Amino acid sequence: MSTFPADSVGLVTPQRLSFSEPLKLACGKSLEQFELVYETYGQLNASRSNALLICHALSGHHHAAGFHSADERKPGWWDACIGPGKAIDTNRFFVVSLNNLGGCHGSTGPSSINPATGKPYGASFPVLTVEDWVHSQALLADQLGIDTWAAVVGGSLGGMQALQWAISYPQRIRHCLAIATAPKLSAQNIAFNEVARQAIITDPDFHNGDYAAFGVIPKRGLMLARMVGHITYLSDDSMGEKFGRELRTDVLNYDFTSVEFQVESYLRYQGQEFSERFDANTYLLMTKALDYFDPAGAHDGNLAKALEGIQARCMVMSFTTDWRFSPARSRELVDALLAARKQVSYLEIEAAQGHDAFLLPIPRYVQALQAYMNRIEVNA
Amino acid sequence: MSTFPADSVGLVTPQRLSFSEPLKLACGKSLEQFELVYETYGQLNASRSNALLICHALSGHHHAAGFHSADERKPGWWDACIGPGKAIDTNRFFVVSLNNLGGCHGSTGPSSINPATGKPYGASFPVLTVEDWVHSQALLADQLGIDTWAAVVGGSLGGMQALQWAISYPQRIRHCLAIATAPKLSAQNIAFNEVARQAIITDPDFHNGDYAAFGVIPKRGLMLARMVGHITYLSDDSMGEKFGRELRTDVLNYDFTSVEFQVESYLRYQGQEFSERFDANTYLLMTKALDYFDPAGAHDGNLAKALEGIQARCMVMSFTTDWRFSPARSRELVDALLAARKQVSYLEIEAAQGHDAFLLPIPRYVQALQAYMNRIEVNA
Repeated sequence: MSTFPADSVGLVTPQRLSFSEPLKLACGKSLEQFELVYETYGQLNASRSNALLICHALSGHHHAAGFHSADERKPGWWDACIGPGKAIDTNRFFVVSLNNLGGCHGSTGPSSINPATGKPYGASFPVLTVEDWVHSQALLADQLGIDTWAAVVGGSLGGMQALQWAISYPQRIRHCLAIATAPKLSAQNIAFNEVARQAIITDPDFHNGDYAAFGVIPKRGLMLARMVGHITYLSDDSMGEKFGRELRTDVLNYDFTSVEFQVESYLRYQGQEFSERFDANTYLLMTKALDYFDPAGAHDGNLAKALEGIQARCMVMSFTTDWRFSPARSRELVDALLAARKQVSYLEIEAAQGHDAFLLPIPRYVQALQAYMNRIEVNA
Repeated sequence: MSTFPADSVGLVTPQRLSFSEPLKLACGKSLEQFELVYETYGQLNASRSNALLICHALSGHHHAAGFHSADERKPGWWDACIGPGKAIDTNRFFVVSLNNLGGCHGSTGPSSINPATGKPYGASFPVLTVEDWVHSQALLADQLGIDTWAAVVGGSLGGMQALQWAISYPQRIRHCLAIATAPKLSAQNIAFNEVARQAIITDPDFHNGDYAAFGVIPKRGLMLARMVGHITYLSDDSMGEKFGRELRTDVLNYDFTSVEFQVESYLRYQGQEFSERFDANTYLLMTKALDYFDPAGAHDGNLAKALEGIQARCMVMSFTTDWRFSPARSRELVDALLAARKQVSYLEIEAAQGHDAFLLPIPRYVQALQAYMNRIEVNA
């Protein structure tokens, strides 16, 4: 039997909570009932002052740390930062990590059975927004007996949720950590999402979102969507260092189907693997939530105004070679927080890995995160 | 009847030349016979010293200037720079612009009828390289009685051809103008090409390249390929200025199929329009030619060594916000030309339009091009 590393949260078991009160959504519809799957690491203290929420990004899920079994090949997606003695120290914090509503890893989403019809929701699943997620996360907090989060932490789309928490529930969040994120998407960001969506929607196996009824999945579309996404997660430099123009074999094949360059091999593998494990409708939903996120929108584009009610201390972090959500986008957010006279720290981390950096154990990043987390007060 | 602007080359008629000597290709195969369609502007002088070759980019063709009819809505793709008194002055130069071999605008390509079978080449059309194109262009020059080009000019993939001319036929080119190009693709460049190819190849209407036999075209794949390409042609800033987050209507639709943001509308239109006019096999072929271009490859990666035989004077130009072939890629080329002790000028032009800038009438760019062209000596 294998043992887990000493700084691992070890074996974790996903938990599940049901919500039977209708959840009113931004789109105008309601979800009559839903379930959220989540994991927790560490212990909630007596004063309930040490709870911390992890929000996941586009293709993420609740399994952020530890192992589901002794045989699990890889730990949770942010295991580098969550564990006893790690940056997010589970000896101090009670960490909650959920699969967002609309997801495809256990929480109610398009691939779940709609109790009203006995069939998968498919295309009928409502389009969700970051606000909707935060509302559903607040209901989860209620059920867990957590009135106030010591911190809400997220990268990329997760950072948008952390920010929305600070906006929507100013009294329920003490620290907001928004990492490698942006206060809204740029036209280029939306354009990449649109390519991904068109790839999925135009796949003949998509069947307007009701592919489950046809016993197929739009694999080609999902593969392409993931390939495009992956390019935007890596920096040009890191791709160059990782793959360069290296050929898989010594000769060129002079055809269009052979995998010739290493980078092609990598992308196809990533795309294919993703297309077998991720739900297409969930992917569409996640990209729309990204596109729609725009807290300044309700305030004539005045971001500072949108942030006026925030009471949380904010920590904003960006990575130098991230071109999906570049440091300039983080500085926009920082400037608006300053204009709104909020407490904000900002760190731009030198890192070659592009947007992906926020998931990686980059020493300066992890140390800075740890230093910030250790300053968060937690009563007994 | 409409008249043409005074600085237009006016009405032009594409011409066609047949080549019946087999053309040996880099892939090892030969083309037994082929045709090239081309246009000329201006007059070849008595000493035949004023001929200038325009090489087109990925989706380009021979129609670079003037109008095919009095009703034609738009002139040729580089009309801003070619005409009497323009940067490439047709009062001085005899300009030749062809559709490359493998193209889909009249030159022999995958959609042409293979005389050996009486059916379209389709998937059987050989994969071409930039060297192959330059060899076929040299045969065209022979037939036109042009021994030496005063200049070979091209942007992007066209710039690679200009550079390859200087390498392959050092004595047949006096000036090489390589604009918004790179001495080879980066891993990221190849990755974007691979997404485009996968979009086409996985389209069920592709039929392994023999879609013509099935009476269909892989429209979905071509549309996606073009959408991805288009994002890389524009800068993040120019996309932001052009579209921002502007909505087409005032309300969000909360679905995945509506066109909500202007940038989505633009991309879908560009993609759909392209998918109706461009051949999928040609698109694959063009992207492979880009991927394979690597003159340093035959010299253990030593670019200066690859450029050693060049006799042409070189002019390299780049645009500040071009992230497809960034100024750094042009500087690589310039550095290698300097290391090889070649005559080279370099200009980095401040332009917000990204890679697309090389096609646009940006004053400083057009003026610099004109100044350079006017210094090229042309005998009577």
